[in-house]
Amino acid sequence: MQNFTFHNPTRIIFGEGQIAALDSELPHDARVLITSGGSSIKRNGVLEQVQTALGERASFVFSGIEPNPTYETLMQAVELAREKNIDFLLAVGGGSVIDGTKFIAAALKFDGEPWDILAKQAEVNDAMPFGSVLTLPATGSEMNNGSVISYRAKGDKLPFRSDATYPRFSILDPTTTYSLPPRQIANGVVDAFVHIVEQYLTYPVDAKVQDRLAEGLLITLTEVGPQALAEPHNYGVRANLMWTATLALNGLIGAGVPQDWATHMLGHEITALHGLDHAQTLAVVLPAMLTVRREQKRAKLLQYAERVWNLMEGSEDERITAAITATREFFERMTVPTHLRDYEIGGDSIETLIAKLKEHGMTALGEHGDVTPEVSRQVYQLAV
Amino acid sequence: MQNFTFHNPTRIIFGEGQIAALDSELPHDARVLITSGGSSIKRNGVLEQVQTALGERASFVFSGIEPNPTYETLMQAVELAREKNIDFLLAVGGGSVIDGTKFIAAALKFDGEPWDILAKQAEVNDAMPFGSVLTLPATGSEMNNGSVISYRAKGDKLPFRSDATYPRFSILDPTTTYSLPPRQIANGVVDAFVHIVEQYLTYPVDAKVQDRLAEGLLITLTEVGPQALAEPHNYGVRANLMWTATLALNGLIGAGVPQDWATHMLGHEITALHGLDHAQTLAVVLPAMLTVRREQKRAKLLQYAERVWNLMEGSEDERITAAITATREFFERMTVPTHLRDYEIGGDSIETLIAKLKEHGMTALGEHGDVTPEVSRQVYQLAV
Repeated sequence: MQNFTFHNPTRIIFGEGQIAALDSELPHDARVLITSGGSSIKRNGVLEQVQTALGERASFVFSGIEPNPTYETLMQAVELAREKNIDFLLAVGGGSVIDGTKFIAAALKFDGEPWDILAKQAEVNDAMPFGSVLTLPATGSEMNNGSVISYRAKGDKLPFRSDATYPRFSILDPTTTYSLPPRQIANGVVDAFVHIVEQYLTYPVDAKVQDRLAEGLLITLTEVGPQALAEPHNYGVRANLMWTATLALNGLIGAGVPQDWATHMLGHEITALHGLDHAQTLAVVLPAMLTVRREQKRAKLLQYAERVWNLMEGSEDERITAAITATREFFERMTVPTHLRDYEIGGDSIETLIAKLKEHGMTALGEHGDVTPEVSRQVYQLAV
Repeated sequence: MQNFTFHNPTRIIFGEGQIAALDSELPHDARVLITSGGSSIKRNGVLEQVQTALGERASFVFSGIEPNPTYETLMQAVELAREKNIDFLLAVGGGSVIDGTKFIAAALKFDGEPWDILAKQAEVNDAMPFGSVLTLPATGSEMNNGSVISYRAKGDKLPFRSDATYPRFSILDPTTTYSLPPRQIANGVVDAFVHIVEQYLTYPVDAKVQDRLAEGLLITLTEVGPQALAEPHNYGVRANLMWTATLALNGLIGAGVPQDWATHMLGHEITALHGLDHAQTLAVVLPAMLTVRREQKRAKLLQYAERVWNLMEGSEDERITAAITATREFFERMTVPTHLRDYEIGGDSIETLIAKLKEHGMTALGEHGDVTPEVSRQVYQLAV
């Protein structure tokens, strides 16, 4: 096991009916900016529940934070927050809304051009306090300090994190997910699954605890993922999915182990260039990445085959191949296609994707730092 | 899954050499009271490492906090802390030292007779800040807000908890455990194992995530427990044991599920009356408790048999019996005897133990509240 620091101060308030807890989580005199995506939180009644819980507090709504939230949109929210003298942000939505709100929170206290937080990785020492009401189990943003922001005009999609950007609290009510379109549930399952894989499928460091926790989360997803599509109103299924997706990226399973994240980085470029959903890019890249990197990941792939997919027959190479196939088939069963051609993308843009990776400094990715642009090219080619 | 709140603000700093991090964790002008047990931290060099890391800060040592820390001893530390104008406590030791330090921290800010915190469950709203350097993987006290304190003169052993008594940080360096006597390692493994069982072996509430996490921790203990006895200087083994014991009782696996704790309560009375080590009482009580409660715990016992002990042959009743036997044999393999007679205790004191349970209000224990004094009597009788 590697040395690590683990610290996660976010308070999780979990379960049906918990939106009412907002009243005790927010200062009584808070001036609140509710940040949100589209109109779904109006249709499904979540916004009304939130506003009821806020009671007499001054609150304003900024809606329109898009999937892959953009600098352009978020800076409008920064302006509104300043205009309304906001002192608390409340993200109501999924990972994009929460990621965007982290940027708004940081930008509001940042001295200088906020895009530098992404482009120059400028240090974020302070941020406006914020909480979240999660409506989409997927990214884990509700219990971590990370955020990924896109700059539409530049075609960039970049991450930042800071100790100042943990949500103070996040409310996870599984019933808020009942009305989600199947595509978003499917994407969420794939996203959470790949988050776990990025922290697990590397090389062994005798981290028995972290391995068992990661495997437990992966197995849970293989169980509840398809059920979540088949039975949208099954509370237990949605509850297990929601809590798993949160634990997938709250720092716990990644503490003390090597991490990969190459699949995410290659995926971000596909989203930036072609507009695919984040999870769609992961479903496309991961099976190709595991295939190209099967020798470097050999020991953990064998463990993954046995413990997650119960694959114990055949040679080592057969088991590894079967595990990668099982992964691809799981994504397909979740109705998320796993080849670029399924999204009508051929190999023509690969050189552009590689150029963007280089531009963003993504030339030594993966747990060994040996996913060079040449290796990334192989992955993209195999993903077509 | 049941509704829950999960919040754990303790910062964990894990790994070899991390004691040096004390310098950045403590205020530069802190006046520190180091609290400790016996002389082992002098012999193994941990105290020296701590004092080196504290540098120029004013620091004092209070040693002599005993296993099952007593009110009588801890109040001496409270007096010393007041006399020396201490503003930060640093527990260096195992769960007893950390539990004791939580009480010292609370007592220092408590208005009134501090024993009321235990006896009357008086609310603790404030406590002196404290951190810990853990030297014994066992109780999980390093990452939770709970504490169990004994009053020697009264023969009482009672728990308290408060939001104010989370350690600010805990440093977990597995090498500090190398010099522990085998008995303490063995006790620690049993203690952590039973902590997990108390949050897992109840009844199903469709909490797939929590079940998988608990099972992962249990399996890890069955793997590393015997190794920890056989290879005291195996870093990986000690690291996995240490992190597992912490995660066993940091609130995570118990969030959203029913909990039992009857085994602990029956065990506390045995310690208070006969002076057995805490883990010894758990090893004695748990197999008897599971036997007496096998019908109420039937579904989870079957799951435990299959997933933790890989017991899939035979009838349901045979598998349950085999799982209880496997549990007992695991404790025995850890060199912790599992019958009261092994400690030269017969059935004579059972009525005294039952009277003490009643006196402490422990008359409706367990996940269903139906472990009455009569049921407890059956458990004690079976434990002889």
